[in-house]
Amino acid sequence: MKNLMDIYARKRKDVAAIEKELEESVYSDHPLLRETSTHLLKAGGKRIRPVFVLLAGEFGTYKLQTMKLVAVPLELIHMASLVHDDVIDDANTRRGQLTVRSKWDNRIAMFTGDYIFAKALSVITDIPKPAVHKIMSKAIVEMSIGEMEQIRFFFNTDQTVRDYLLRIRRKTALLIAISCQLGAMAADSPDWISNKLYTFGYNIGMTFQIRDDILDLIGTEKQIGKPPGSDVKQGNITLPVLLAMKDPNLRPHILTELDRIHKLDGQTDVSLFLDIIRGSAGIDEADRLSQRYLDKAIAALDKLPNIQAKKDLIEVAHFIGNRSY
Amino acid sequence: MKNLMDIYARKRKDVAAIEKELEESVYSDHPLLRETSTHLLKAGGKRIRPVFVLLAGEFGTYKLQTMKLVAVPLELIHMASLVHDDVIDDANTRRGQLTVRSKWDNRIAMFTGDYIFAKALSVITDIPKPAVHKIMSKAIVEMSIGEMEQIRFFFNTDQTVRDYLLRIRRKTALLIAISCQLGAMAADSPDWISNKLYTFGYNIGMTFQIRDDILDLIGTEKQIGKPPGSDVKQGNITLPVLLAMKDPNLRPHILTELDRIHKLDGQTDVSLFLDIIRGSAGIDEADRLSQRYLDKAIAALDKLPNIQAKKDLIEVAHFIGNRSY
Repeated sequence: MKNLMDIYARKRKDVAAIEKELEESVYSDHPLLRETSTHLLKAGGKRIRPVFVLLAGEFGTYKLQTMKLVAVPLELIHMASLVHDDVIDDANTRRGQLTVRSKWDNRIAMFTGDYIFAKALSVITDIPKPAVHKIMSKAIVEMSIGEMEQIRFFFNTDQTVRDYLLRIRRKTALLIAISCQLGAMAADSPDWISNKLYTFGYNIGMTFQIRDDILDLIGTEKQIGKPPGSDVKQGNITLPVLLAMKDPNLRPHILTELDRIHKLDGQTDVSLFLDIIRGSAGIDEADRLSQRYLDKAIAALDKLPNIQAKKDLIEVAHFIGNRSY
Repeated sequence: MKNLMDIYARKRKDVAAIEKELEESVYSDHPLLRETSTHLLKAGGKRIRPVFVLLAGEFGTYKLQTMKLVAVPLELIHMASLVHDDVIDDANTRRGQLTVRSKWDNRIAMFTGDYIFAKALSVITDIPKPAVHKIMSKAIVEMSIGEMEQIRFFFNTDQTVRDYLLRIRRKTALLIAISCQLGAMAADSPDWISNKLYTFGYNIGMTFQIRDDILDLIGTEKQIGKPPGSDVKQGNITLPVLLAMKDPNLRPHILTELDRIHKLDGQTDVSLFLDIIRGSAGIDEADRLSQRYLDKAIAALDKLPNIQAKKDLIEVAHFIGNRSY
């Protein structure tokens, strides 16, 4: 995924421009903030939100300068939410790098998140469209509810697949949805197009997160940049696990393992747990649901004009649905 | 200050309307967020930002519905920053009530802050004026730098009065400044008026924080709703202390005490420290500086039309400059 850019060399220059703008946007005279923010940026990331903004912008009047004003804040909001997430997850590494909370401390991570978040807002308000600001702020409210919601469901074995889907909707899908929508809106494309792109983004966001959650269970540390089983160690019970628990033969073993991991606060080997889930039907079933979202995403593009960006969006979508890293 | 409203019974109805709107704005289907947010709101507060918004609005076309859309988010941002502040301060009580971090935990306090903050943005974007959104987001960036800055200066005895003033500018004065400015802008008053009100708000914000810092040193727990000396226990070195340290006879004693309190991480009796500062010229000198800001605030109103709101602003300003609680 880190070389997502290779798929569409076409946008490479603009993605690079956004990367530069990201660096400049978090530049601060404050030495510690500069250090923590730069550390975060350097840790890299898939930058899929900026890519979606750029592709969506091609359905209207594409101006890189305007696209930047949408792409940069969306990536910053994503980064800010990761820093705060790492605080509650007690995460020490992300993408193979030390997290801010681990390199500095939780309080510094909290304020770094606050700062990056504030910077994001400051950039987007350079677009003089109140509707854009409104959509973004509403999505952020949902995201923040999602953050809190995570805590409630840690190690909660009564949760349903619906609870899970609602959670990843808030945590991931909404921000990707509005990346597509706002990219189109900022480029003055008609409402019906930005709405279709919202639907595309929402569904591909769901695919993305389900795939992410599958990879945490079946990937290797090298592939995913963190030890597999990180989710369950934090108490995050994901779709394949919920589906595996529907098997009456496996359910008691999964519950026992979850209980054990919970009691040890995640500070334990989880290979038995991973083996059970890998041997269950949960992985394939989760993958099928992920593919259904992928199909819906692509269907949403149906009526859009057949420009290059549409082909690219489809290609990126397939990549996201089938990635193994 | 809790009965600030008694001073201007005139706005009591509108302040009550805002109080109601504040409650509704943080209402959430999420049980924990509803609980934490309501707890915060019930802890009360001076609501001076909403009051400034309302009074500033009278210099234009005053519509309560529009005023609410400015007053509510400004108070919410203030609240959100308090919750995050309590996390770094390890504060257990504020205004005589348990803090969110103490009643729940630091992570829940962090997310409650994120949520209230997001809600604030969502409310203000109902005002279709990009300039309003821009001013607000820029102030929030400064505030977030100020949050991080606090950490840097904890127990830092090399800091100057200038460092202190810059810190309280970000921490307090800017938000009060834009409360006045945005109240006027939302009411469509001319730019020169909203700019004068910004200057008023900025200066009265400085007065407010200096007074607050003095009260932490000379007030009683009953007056200030927390034990006196809370600032120094957290490592927050305030203006009266910096000024007292200029006295070569007192300086070594203050440094010794600060060092002792620092080493004990604030978990110690600070009455000797308080006695030294109370016996120094620092309190009176800080008070004089606070009065200078007060004078500047009132001077900024000079050319504004002589409406009732102007008289009220002056009255509130004097109250803030001389309050003992």
